[in-house]
Amino acid sequence: MLPIAIDVMSGDHAPPEYVTGALQALREDAALRVLLVGDPALIEPRVAPLSAALRARIETAPASEVVSMGESPREAIRRKKDSSMRVAVDLVKSGRASACVSAGNTGALNAIAHFVLKTLPGVERAAIISAIPAAHGHTHMLDLGANTKATPEQLGQFAAMGAIIARDVYGLASPRIGLLNIGEEDMKGHEVVQAAHVLLARSRLNYVGFVEGDDIFSGDVDVVVTDGFTGNVALKTMEGAAGLIADRMRREFRASWSARLAGMAARPVLRRVAASLDPRRYNGACMVGLTGIVVKSHGRADGVAFARAIITAALAARRGLTAHIAQALAAQGAETAQGSTT
Amino acid sequence: MLPIAIDVMSGDHAPPEYVTGALQALREDAALRVLLVGDPALIEPRVAPLSAALRARIETAPASEVVSMGESPREAIRRKKDSSMRVAVDLVKSGRASACVSAGNTGALNAIAHFVLKTLPGVERAAIISAIPAAHGHTHMLDLGANTKATPEQLGQFAAMGAIIARDVYGLASPRIGLLNIGEEDMKGHEVVQAAHVLLARSRLNYVGFVEGDDIFSGDVDVVVTDGFTGNVALKTMEGAAGLIADRMRREFRASWSARLAGMAARPVLRRVAASLDPRRYNGACMVGLTGIVVKSHGRADGVAFARAIITAALAARRGLTAHIAQALAAQGAETAQGSTT
Repeated sequence: MLPIAIDVMSGDHAPPEYVTGALQALREDAALRVLLVGDPALIEPRVAPLSAALRARIETAPASEVVSMGESPREAIRRKKDSSMRVAVDLVKSGRASACVSAGNTGALNAIAHFVLKTLPGVERAAIISAIPAAHGHTHMLDLGANTKATPEQLGQFAAMGAIIARDVYGLASPRIGLLNIGEEDMKGHEVVQAAHVLLARSRLNYVGFVEGDDIFSGDVDVVVTDGFTGNVALKTMEGAAGLIADRMRREFRASWSARLAGMAARPVLRRVAASLDPRRYNGACMVGLTGIVVKSHGRADGVAFARAIITAALAARRGLTAHIAQALAAQGAETAQGSTT
Repeated sequence: MLPIAIDVMSGDHAPPEYVTGALQALREDAALRVLLVGDPALIEPRVAPLSAALRARIETAPASEVVSMGESPREAIRRKKDSSMRVAVDLVKSGRASACVSAGNTGALNAIAHFVLKTLPGVERAAIISAIPAAHGHTHMLDLGANTKATPEQLGQFAAMGAIIARDVYGLASPRIGLLNIGEEDMKGHEVVQAAHVLLARSRLNYVGFVEGDDIFSGDVDVVVTDGFTGNVALKTMEGAAGLIADRMRREFRASWSARLAGMAARPVLRRVAASLDPRRYNGACMVGLTGIVVKSHGRADGVAFARAIITAALAARRGLTAHIAQALAAQGAETAQGSTT
């Protein structure tokens, strides 16, 4: 497999944190190779002391600029042609890398990825998908914020892409697809979800119908489809709710000496719970629907979490995600063109 | 204060559960009076054995029909004119009750409340608001699902109503208002939130700008404004995330004998955490913007939670919520008409 291009300059941390993440991914995955993109003066000193075997799996691609977290996507495309983010995406385009990873500005990465790689035939807009912890393991949810809106057709494309990822990257034979909505009987949402519901019911996908916010975690569905506005709000809401619960627990376990003792006794168990739900374990949201693989790491991700994003990118590249999505969407497009309702 | 009309027939539980909730509310609030709406044959046997003092605060209003959980709002309005839900709302309209509470079908209650009570001048659509646990106590969020969409003007009305509730019902001097959006710098949402942002920045409200899903819990904002689709998804998502965490903890604390022992030691602390976040403590979402007070209890709410919804209704009625909202919206309307930008 070609190396994974890694933007080590963008994100809330300093570049060494991302280099550390890349090294961890290399240690975890013996077949992985990486292309570290950024300022060689910051990268080389961290690579030089490594073993020859490890160094043999690391290349460096220089980039003289960095897209800042607050930069507008338009400006990032126009003015930052030698940014680490742009160079990493360009390396995928030119066939030198099998995928790229960045923890930078989501809007800029999304815009650059669309501008450089373009969407696959049959895909109007790429979407961001990620695994979310759920009762049965995890649910795959998209779009988590690549777009602020989606048409019924686009929601249908998201569903098809989510099904491919759940099947080919995560090994689910026939992933159950749900469309995020409000209420169940009373008021079944606005016209966009209504129209998407009709489209999905006619598709070849294993569509189970409308689901609600709590079904993301229930285990009753494998892929949750929604527009990028709703998906991003839901993602941030679950992070916030989990953070509030963790804070309350920390506070209560410090409230008295007896609580502190109980906290010490419970610590190993609580650590296991926290680890099983640790957002760092689920880091690495994939932009799907483009001609190449782009993985977005959380901006606040540390090295440990960044390594997960790299492993996700490698997995997607190995399983031939792009080709599989292209095939599925072409088949779906052909089916729609024939007016098939099977 | 006039009594609170209570629909004891609608919801996931049987009527006795809701009568029990009403009795609990009466015991908690010595000045409260209730009007139990439903089948007298189910209500009277539960009221008859009570003390004379308690019975003196309970009236009964007969209703021969029940709106089912799956019934369409349109059918509920047309065909169920003697339903407990309709009669409870009618009692508010006719001035016999100061507010009403129901755990029934949200869509039907919303439709009946709009049909019977109508919206206040300056309010295009009523919204559902509820308190959500947050780092600083709680955040008030609306719309939680009365409408599937909202215009920028409607979001502005929701903000004004949320501010009144936070101030007059919950006692916050100058509630901080945030508009729910995705991202912070990158992509600031679709045109509706953009236009609402401009409106709110010009208003007299203490508007702090865009907030993200995790800010619902952060304590940085007191009122979170959004459309009913996004708000309902966020609400259900936080419930689902909290449920997943609770399930994982239960499972891990049962995984071994040492975990069970640790769980016993930690139980009092964990109970305090659970109690502080218990959705039953926050039960009772208010429909605001109508000419009367309508409180929606969660369909699954038990008696304990139903009592909270009744207490919420009584608080809103005592504080003169409807009149305060009417005044605020009239003032805002006048201001807008004068083109004031202060």
